[in-house]
Amino acid sequence: MMKDVTAVLTIAGSDSSGGAGIQADLKTFAAFQCYGTSVVTALTAQNTTGVQAIHGVPQDFVAQQIQSVLDDIDIRGIKTGMLFDSPNTKVVASTLKEHFKRNGRVPLVCDPVCVSTSGHVLLQPEAITAMVDDLFPLAQLITPNRQEAELLLKARSLRSDVTSLDDMLVAAQNLLTLGPEAVLLKGGHVNVSVDDIKSVAVPDNASVEVSYDFFLGENMELFQTAKTSVAEDLVVDVLCRRGVRTITLYPRPRLQSKSTHGTGCTLSAALACALGNGIPLTEATAQATSFTHLGIETAVPIGKGFGPLNHLHSASRFVLQPRTPGNPYPLTQKLIRSTARLWKEYVQHDFVVQLGKGTLKRSSFIHFIKQDYHYLKYYARGYALLASKSHGFASILAATKIILHISSESTMHTSFCAQWGITAEELETTPESPATTAYGAFLIDTGLQGDTTKLLMALAACLLGYGEVGLWLKREAEKSNSWVTWEGNPYLKWMQDYSGEDYQNAVRVGLETIEAVAAADPPSPSRYDEWMAVWEKCVQLERGFWDMAMNLS
Amino acid sequence: MMKDVTAVLTIAGSDSSGGAGIQADLKTFAAFQCYGTSVVTALTAQNTTGVQAIHGVPQDFVAQQIQSVLDDIDIRGIKTGMLFDSPNTKVVASTLKEHFKRNGRVPLVCDPVCVSTSGHVLLQPEAITAMVDDLFPLAQLITPNRQEAELLLKARSLRSDVTSLDDMLVAAQNLLTLGPEAVLLKGGHVNVSVDDIKSVAVPDNASVEVSYDFFLGENMELFQTAKTSVAEDLVVDVLCRRGVRTITLYPRPRLQSKSTHGTGCTLSAALACALGNGIPLTEATAQATSFTHLGIETAVPIGKGFGPLNHLHSASRFVLQPRTPGNPYPLTQKLIRSTARLWKEYVQHDFVVQLGKGTLKRSSFIHFIKQDYHYLKYYARGYALLASKSHGFASILAATKIILHISSESTMHTSFCAQWGITAEELETTPESPATTAYGAFLIDTGLQGDTTKLLMALAACLLGYGEVGLWLKREAEKSNSWVTWEGNPYLKWMQDYSGEDYQNAVRVGLETIEAVAAADPPSPSRYDEWMAVWEKCVQLERGFWDMAMNLS
Repeated sequence: MMKDVTAVLTIAGSDSSGGAGIQADLKTFAAFQCYGTSVVTALTAQNTTGVQAIHGVPQDFVAQQIQSVLDDIDIRGIKTGMLFDSPNTKVVASTLKEHFKRNGRVPLVCDPVCVSTSGHVLLQPEAITAMVDDLFPLAQLITPNRQEAELLLKARSLRSDVTSLDDMLVAAQNLLTLGPEAVLLKGGHVNVSVDDIKSVAVPDNASVEVSYDFFLGENMELFQTAKTSVAEDLVVDVLCRRGVRTITLYPRPRLQSKSTHGTGCTLSAALACALGNGIPLTEATAQATSFTHLGIETAVPIGKGFGPLNHLHSASRFVLQPRTPGNPYPLTQKLIRSTARLWKEYVQHDFVVQLGKGTLKRSSFIHFIKQDYHYLKYYARGYALLASKSHGFASILAATKIILHISSESTMHTSFCAQWGITAEELETTPESPATTAYGAFLIDTGLQGDTTKLLMALAACLLGYGEVGLWLKREAEKSNSWVTWEGNPYLKWMQDYSGEDYQNAVRVGLETIEAVAAADPPSPSRYDEWMAVWEKCVQLERGFWDMAMNLS
Repeated sequence: MMKDVTAVLTIAGSDSSGGAGIQADLKTFAAFQCYGTSVVTALTAQNTTGVQAIHGVPQDFVAQQIQSVLDDIDIRGIKTGMLFDSPNTKVVASTLKEHFKRNGRVPLVCDPVCVSTSGHVLLQPEAITAMVDDLFPLAQLITPNRQEAELLLKARSLRSDVTSLDDMLVAAQNLLTLGPEAVLLKGGHVNVSVDDIKSVAVPDNASVEVSYDFFLGENMELFQTAKTSVAEDLVVDVLCRRGVRTITLYPRPRLQSKSTHGTGCTLSAALACALGNGIPLTEATAQATSFTHLGIETAVPIGKGFGPLNHLHSASRFVLQPRTPGNPYPLTQKLIRSTARLWKEYVQHDFVVQLGKGTLKRSSFIHFIKQDYHYLKYYARGYALLASKSHGFASILAATKIILHISSESTMHTSFCAQWGITAEELETTPESPATTAYGAFLIDTGLQGDTTKLLMALAACLLGYGEVGLWLKREAEKSNSWVTWEGNPYLKWMQDYSGEDYQNAVRVGLETIEAVAAADPPSPSRYDEWMAVWEKCVQLERGFWDMAMNLS
């Protein structure tokens, strides 16, 4: 089941090629498993080579979109990107201001998008004033890059050269005076070395701290390689917060990549998710910069120019669908469906059919019962192994109860034997057939080789298959003119036992256990393949077990 | 690393509230791990309660967006949704037709969106002709719901009542005459029973087949519950293909849910992904209907009206970041970072520091060497257990080589002892300290309880920690005025052995093995927590081992 979900909003332009704008934002929201909403301020016809055309959205319609979202959905984080022109910028600011006034503030990340990487103007110059005057005071964070910082500072006649780490520290502090609660000045276009960082982050100076997520910490000599120890060309983002004396630096190695289209959009969208989830700003910044860095590092080329990031680098798909009211047993159903032919050969084996008719040769049944008696010892040992591998008393006891159940199941075998003049001694000393040893030893081997879940897979084919056979024979017997002989069948007790409440309860508990384990620790594709191989092997061994009974091997 | 990715395109309206339109499509594309692009035909200001306003996009700008995408990106699947008006519909059709002519056809799914669930007109009535005449002939599939089917059939003066399954079969065939290669007529607004299906899907009649994905197959008595056996209220989608006599039905239980906003968008987007991935139409339809059904079934309420689906029901996030050139050891780095304090107490233990200085009491070192000799037997047995749990000769041999390595490591212990007058007999008969037994027995217990990966976690702290200590002491010794005494240190051989090429090679192989295993079978959060617990425990036991040496316990 889907848990409570954080809803976030982007107010930005649309990028038809999907790498930037609301598209990058929505992909980032999905990667963070947030619910994404979006307000479009302008449409662009663009691709990885550049912006071919822009269609601005009327001011009133921008306001209407924001209103539609905020009136209906509990938005916990907002980001703004390309705002296009002054009227749109003003209406975004006034609508959000009004909303914050009535409903309280929500983290707002303002990415002051001005010019595209390809040089296209995405914010008309006269709109800068509106952005600074109206929007920045509402923002928890603004995220300018070097060029945007220089534009903003120049517009306020502040020192606007940002060519070094020292410049960045000054610029970030100056940008803070424009009104936002915090500034994350992005360093993608400034060259910084390790020595530059050391020169500003002086020990015992609390005014600059460094987030070393991308670098080896102490006591990590063993990861040193020639490559990481000479990462001299760094990108450093600088975080400066109002009322906090310490500036935080986020350095990382510079990546040589053409997959950088939409980097700023992605970063600010990731920040909106993290802040919307209630994560503090410094940690949110670490998460968002790391997410974006990996998006560049793992991207494959798309398009002919500067391609998009890989937003899904940390997303995987479940092999199994979630448990739902409609299908509470997705794992076992998938196992059975995937082995449908084999499963049918097992649960509708000729042995079963003849047993149901009551025509099964007594010699086959006796051979089966003797071998099944031996098998049940392995089967009980399998659950004992499960108990020995368990983590707590609940699972130790659950496995132990099944051992007791198997022990009582075996009394059916001894009573059948007694009924047909086979002594307890003869039963015990009957040699194991190869089919019995193969199946029994496979259970124990699987249990010794893998974890408890893999052992549960090995134990499932017997538990579920006999449950299926019992139910099938009983339901068939209930039909009019049934082919199954119930009363008077020499094997009635066998059918009663496996269709009875006691055994069927054990089946239900077993199903629930397997499904709960798989849901709590969803398998990767390779782990699922291992489970599947164990299941399939056991269904084969079950079929072989009844072959053995029929041909007395 | 991201694999080759299927790029898909949606041409549709924008839904500010994120539940339908290009937003639902982009979320679906992400869920299918496809690369999403989008062309906006109209903007809507809407939410879960209805559509508040619509802003149509000019025809030329729609064409420009399509051109920008198709000129640059290799699109493998396309869907169309809300097209808004006749000019936009025409320009979409003509642009795609031209593209297909020059570059070959791409699967095109046309969702003939006409009216929103809330009754808002999303396609101007006069545009229907353009959609049918210009777009349908390009479509591999159209996906009308009941209302859209009735509108389309009425426009062509064909029988247009769709109130039963029989009607649906006729309607689907009639819709096929409008030009598309196939029709998927959606049954969300038609009530169908199991008997209705039985009456049309007559055995030995090849003209109707049923996809029973949502129902139990044969030999699945054990999943029967009161609930699933009386699923009388069904939704049935009907697939009809040109040139194929057999109609396919996709029935599923009807869900009682208010989370249905964007159902049609989601279905057609999922179809575009599946077809774009080269999956045949009948299987693609099964995948897409199942994806959409689960989206409704697992949704949590969002908004005050008809809420969105959960598009991320089958998406999970990796606990570990992917292995990248920048960080090829994400698992071990995370383990060490998460236990930084404890790890430091281990690898920079007073024992290590005094050993490096050469000031360590001989009694402590001798006690350590004796106990470490005992420990190495457990450690060798741990790798033997790993070999016994292995799947193939490669891993059997890898573990065996380490056993040989440990055996040769132990000769350092015997030679130290010989040097200090301790006989082999005294060494063998020295009782195990509790710290030795605790650590050694924990290794074996972990190996018996879990799978090979968990055992590798248990074996890692010793391998990596001694590698770290060896490297650290060596690198410190190489500094001028070092606190480490190298030449003349009574423990020089110990430092040489663990910093030497032989042991450091073993560390590199160990790191590679652990990271490769984790990358091939990425852990769920709960599995990672188990690994973490084992790692942390072993680091504690390592620290305890050196405590034991210092206090001669």
